[in-house]
Amino acid sequence: MPQLAPPGELAVVPIGDFHTEAGGLINEAFLAYQRWGQLRIGQDGSTNVLLIQHALTGDSDVAEWWKGLVGPGMALDTERFCVICTNVIGGCKGSIGPADRHPDGDHWGSRFPAISIRDQVDAEKKLLDALGIRRLSAVIGGSMGGARTLEWSLMYPEAVDAALVIAVSARASAWQIGIQSAQISMIEGDLFWHGGDYYDTGYSPNAGLGAARKLAHLTYRGELEVDERFGSEAQPGENPLGTFRDRRQRFAVQSYLDHQARKLVERFDAGSYVILTDSLNRHDISRDRGGLNKVLSSSTVPTMVVGVDTDILYPYHQQEHLSRNLGNLLAMAKISSPVGHDAFLAEFRQMDNILRRFMALAEPSLTIPDSPELTGKIEFYI
Amino acid sequence: MPQLAPPGELAVVPIGDFHTEAGGLINEAFLAYQRWGQLRIGQDGSTNVLLIQHALTGDSDVAEWWKGLVGPGMALDTERFCVICTNVIGGCKGSIGPADRHPDGDHWGSRFPAISIRDQVDAEKKLLDALGIRRLSAVIGGSMGGARTLEWSLMYPEAVDAALVIAVSARASAWQIGIQSAQISMIEGDLFWHGGDYYDTGYSPNAGLGAARKLAHLTYRGELEVDERFGSEAQPGENPLGTFRDRRQRFAVQSYLDHQARKLVERFDAGSYVILTDSLNRHDISRDRGGLNKVLSSSTVPTMVVGVDTDILYPYHQQEHLSRNLGNLLAMAKISSPVGHDAFLAEFRQMDNILRRFMALAEPSLTIPDSPELTGKIEFYI
Repeated sequence: MPQLAPPGELAVVPIGDFHTEAGGLINEAFLAYQRWGQLRIGQDGSTNVLLIQHALTGDSDVAEWWKGLVGPGMALDTERFCVICTNVIGGCKGSIGPADRHPDGDHWGSRFPAISIRDQVDAEKKLLDALGIRRLSAVIGGSMGGARTLEWSLMYPEAVDAALVIAVSARASAWQIGIQSAQISMIEGDLFWHGGDYYDTGYSPNAGLGAARKLAHLTYRGELEVDERFGSEAQPGENPLGTFRDRRQRFAVQSYLDHQARKLVERFDAGSYVILTDSLNRHDISRDRGGLNKVLSSSTVPTMVVGVDTDILYPYHQQEHLSRNLGNLLAMAKISSPVGHDAFLAEFRQMDNILRRFMALAEPSLTIPDSPELTGKIEFYI
Repeated sequence: MPQLAPPGELAVVPIGDFHTEAGGLINEAFLAYQRWGQLRIGQDGSTNVLLIQHALTGDSDVAEWWKGLVGPGMALDTERFCVICTNVIGGCKGSIGPADRHPDGDHWGSRFPAISIRDQVDAEKKLLDALGIRRLSAVIGGSMGGARTLEWSLMYPEAVDAALVIAVSARASAWQIGIQSAQISMIEGDLFWHGGDYYDTGYSPNAGLGAARKLAHLTYRGELEVDERFGSEAQPGENPLGTFRDRRQRFAVQSYLDHQARKLVERFDAGSYVILTDSLNRHDISRDRGGLNKVLSSSTVPTMVVGVDTDILYPYHQQEHLSRNLGNLLAMAKISSPVGHDAFLAEFRQMDNILRRFMALAEPSLTIPDSPELTGKIEFYI
């Protein structure tokens, strides 16, 4: 009997000892998730589950970060579907990550093994197995969530009725690896990083994490949008054009980026940031499977692909590449926006449209059971 | 009587005490330059000088960085023109910069004032005045050199017959300021930076400068080109997909970027890098002149604008903006290349074509004298 958390509440589920793709072991792993809508499971194992995949520093609260898109009568309709969103393994939002305690009582820190996108999917598979969910109406995600969605459709095609892959590529590009490795270096270069074992030092590599976030943010946001907002204006009360350069005298965009950095430092763990950023470097659907295009063409899951016209992190040609080669393409859509990569989180109207279109196109592929919800007690809260 | 350096040789010219736009003073300033081709000066002050403007970490040796484009019979024809290329003030290639000695005997270091693009032009103007050159056939430059070219055409329109502005914008965009400030922070965050006064410590902020260069390089190079070369391949002999992330186990692109970092650290001063990067943040042709478009429309110098289709640092729409608004537009050209911003240094065939086209279009505006070369002794060598 599946046991689901009350709607909207965060729950944590043990998934046992977890072996990573690269040969690591995470003892007594656990994963956190949230769900909305009643779960229905058919005799054949079909379900009404929409599995939503968050991005790098996102979390399971999809009703918040896709506010207005998840709920009764909304694009992801919780009157009809059971929306489930997990927190990724390696993260810091309830699922096990480097900031958590190893069974020996110390923090995992540098002992936390590298995680691949496939590991993220495997951990989710174990969570869903534990909940008694063996099949999904759809998997939906953008950016790192899009990478997971793609891997879901390749690793467990029989378990996925349809997939919506947003703003991602078939593998990390050299440019992405370069910019992502720069972010990792910024954190590793912080004196308070302590090789990843800073948790008991009383200090955190906040400066490194903040600097990494500022850089990342510039890859998430289109230069058109950032320039429209800040141009080359000075931060009010500061003068970046003084006789001598002074780091305390900033342009408005620097203040904005400092703000972004502070916000992330407050809500995210540097160890998780490094683990997950490294997992993006490792994203490659062709690993151990053959050529990229061969792997894509072998895909059987009806898949819709979405890109953003101004995305410099996952440029649109990467989604065109997916569309050209996927074995069972449902449709392709382009978000037109000055916002860049983050448009899938920011362009509400277009995303609403795209999600509704996807659900309509996927409808013939969905095997939604009529049976009533099967719920029970959650295992434990964090 | 103008005194010019022998062809191709680096010469240094004192330009006196230099007052910066923001109120700073550089005592006993000097500028270095190289020239190719015989100088001709007419009775009316007209000359056959093509003034070439290098990019951020470039130098006066344009015959090297535009090899094949400068010389007898080449696009910038030294049989007909006298090609002059200076080293920018604040740099480290012969012109005065923070690594040089203050008249008090210590290094300038943090005492070196902030430099604007207009300061760079003013310093060049003083150099040319010292050489007896009061008018130029053309000013030509890309990136930071393009910013200088644009300012030349606005600050001294009567001295410039024609201008070729490549891969630049009318002012720094918020995105550029963000990414450039990140680079400055990387250097300032290096323990060996010592607030800019590291010259006598025996150590240099090489790690910070290298990290800044890696980031900069990713904005200079198109992701298509980088990905074509390196994809997600491992560096031979290394395994970036191991059980634990290890900074010594790299992807090929990381090794490539490390190489770029090392090369810059060997040839460039961190203090100059900060001063010149900050000057790019300050680039704004509208400062103290009125609106951006009004300033552009007031331009009288026949100007050709060039952009690169894959440039993410100075996206093509910025050059379209220049073209739409410049008061005396000669022509516009687009370099089509996977290389990105650096294409103006890398796409030889297209640049050859563009330079020849520019020279042909500018021809009616050029006032080239017939008088013979007037040369003498150079002032001093470095």
